[in-house]
Amino acid sequence: MRATVMYRAGDVRIENVPDATIVNPTDAIVRVTRASICGSDLWPYKEMEPIETGRRMGHEAIGVVETVGAQVRGVKTDDLVVMPFAFSDGTCAFCHEGLHTSCAHGGFFGTVDVAGAQAEAVRVPQADGTLFVLPVGEDNVLLPSLLTLSDVMGTGHHAALAARVARGKKVAVIGDGAVGLCGVIAAKRLGAEQIIMLGRHPDRMVLARDFGATDIVSERGQEAVERVRKLTGGFGVHSVLECVGTDQAMLTAIGIIRPGGAIGRVGVPHYNAIPASLPAFYNNVTVSGGPAPARAYIEGLLPDVLEGRIVPGRVFDRVVGLDGVPDGYRAMDEREAIKVMVKP
Amino acid sequence: MRATVMYRAGDVRIENVPDATIVNPTDAIVRVTRASICGSDLWPYKEMEPIETGRRMGHEAIGVVETVGAQVRGVKTDDLVVMPFAFSDGTCAFCHEGLHTSCAHGGFFGTVDVAGAQAEAVRVPQADGTLFVLPVGEDNVLLPSLLTLSDVMGTGHHAALAARVARGKKVAVIGDGAVGLCGVIAAKRLGAEQIIMLGRHPDRMVLARDFGATDIVSERGQEAVERVRKLTGGFGVHSVLECVGTDQAMLTAIGIIRPGGAIGRVGVPHYNAIPASLPAFYNNVTVSGGPAPARAYIEGLLPDVLEGRIVPGRVFDRVVGLDGVPDGYRAMDEREAIKVMVKP
Repeated sequence: MRATVMYRAGDVRIENVPDATIVNPTDAIVRVTRASICGSDLWPYKEMEPIETGRRMGHEAIGVVETVGAQVRGVKTDDLVVMPFAFSDGTCAFCHEGLHTSCAHGGFFGTVDVAGAQAEAVRVPQADGTLFVLPVGEDNVLLPSLLTLSDVMGTGHHAALAARVARGKKVAVIGDGAVGLCGVIAAKRLGAEQIIMLGRHPDRMVLARDFGATDIVSERGQEAVERVRKLTGGFGVHSVLECVGTDQAMLTAIGIIRPGGAIGRVGVPHYNAIPASLPAFYNNVTVSGGPAPARAYIEGLLPDVLEGRIVPGRVFDRVVGLDGVPDGYRAMDEREAIKVMVKP
Repeated sequence: MRATVMYRAGDVRIENVPDATIVNPTDAIVRVTRASICGSDLWPYKEMEPIETGRRMGHEAIGVVETVGAQVRGVKTDDLVVMPFAFSDGTCAFCHEGLHTSCAHGGFFGTVDVAGAQAEAVRVPQADGTLFVLPVGEDNVLLPSLLTLSDVMGTGHHAALAARVARGKKVAVIGDGAVGLCGVIAAKRLGAEQIIMLGRHPDRMVLARDFGATDIVSERGQEAVERVRKLTGGFGVHSVLECVGTDQAMLTAIGIIRPGGAIGRVGVPHYNAIPASLPAFYNNVTVSGGPAPARAYIEGLLPDVLEGRIVPGRVFDRVVGLDGVPDGYRAMDEREAIKVMVKP
């Protein structure tokens, strides 16, 4: 079968690899009908040290179950399923608490150890706990939005929950990538009164407005901080969704948060230590977040997708076949595309 | 009148200063009957750069109202009051949200700008919002415990709330100073199932056990982390009360927190950035806390003090007059005393 392999920063290839097969009796093999490239794939695309055997990329997918291991009970051949970016058994203490990304028997797709989903097929460990059977057909028009439940929409929702977004709150979103845009959807869905998007790319700002952003701040650094303060009566926002992962983004977040407010961070941190500890302390700021337990959120978000109340699939502005994946990485890295969907 | 003045690290003097007088119509003058030395006073005692005019120390007190400004309505001459370490108007948006330490017209006692309470008398700005009238007499036996409502007990409670302590949770307390010990009381009061105290001073550990600690961990650094993990089935604790403020304490906190857990920090950070950002992120750890809105907590904690369900006053193990204050600083700094009460 064909799959996406990254060998080093900037070196993404489509190659023939051995077919995905059942390894453990709890596995399923899923034929991938939709995959996508994630903002977090761009970090190795920028920074990865050479790996001789390569890394099999991709952690967001919808597909059709082809075969299941002997112990799989919850999914069966021909089910259309969404695959969250982390696999999880669904039965351990952490899964019961809704923190599937800390599952005792879990892990992540598209790593050096577990092959990814930007491929014709993918082996899914812990299939019963991981896969969610979709109540639609393989060609349903909602597939793009359903695909976001594998990661970005769940991640935006996680940022909003970690930032304690609630009815009537003032919210800022840092990061105009697909996660930030889904964060706007999530904030709106949770009843935020004011949603300030920090970003400048015109197309993305149009989408942000459509999704519910009430204000756009295109300044950066200290100027952005002052502008957000002005927009919020001088106090700052109750909630910041930090969807970037740089120390500059976190500094901005701490600069615009209202005393007693919360920062939900979902961008993988590319800083060793959360900066500005003292201002955060004196203002009783809460910093929370991490990898989203996307699996936990599917059930709650699904009705809103199926009934059209949210359309997170609009973050996809390019569709490619497997051959187009390397150029898809380039396009996202150069911010030419917001998010690329892959039809293997 | 006589008051405590710090001129530089290690240089604390009792001096004659002008009597405290009303400056603003919202002030009150309180004759101090009980004050105390706080763990946070030890930071300037260790580190303060020379100040020619000195800094008038002290931010925890009980006293009797002597005079009130023309606009004060809520307290009157001869009221016995507790004075939280921050003053606040009680009417602004933040006070209404229970975050009195961020009051729009608030500030802190014992700073370069606002004279402190280790003195015969203290000027209390925003008297109506700041002072809490006590329903007991000036010589009541509960005065030591009531005095802790000005800071340490409220701060321990704040750490517990920030760490999301609740019924049935496993909790660790880092720091065996008076705040950490009050953190044990707070965790027990909120229904924690297991309370692990990290500390080693024998007298303090006896007190910690009395207050509700179920386990004592006297190891440090990585050994402490491993021991706490062993005590919690390998998972770590749901809540850490970080009552020290060093980066080593925060590293230990991040090492022993369970995925999805929360760290409540109340020790003034002596680090510029919260370390170990990546492990905290991958485990979805929440870091929260800051200066406790002690004023907000008095009403809730008071009945438990008055009815003897909690006895935080036991953290005082030395009583001095004003003349004994400099030696009180030394004794606390050398960990000879847990906490020193001052009877001016």
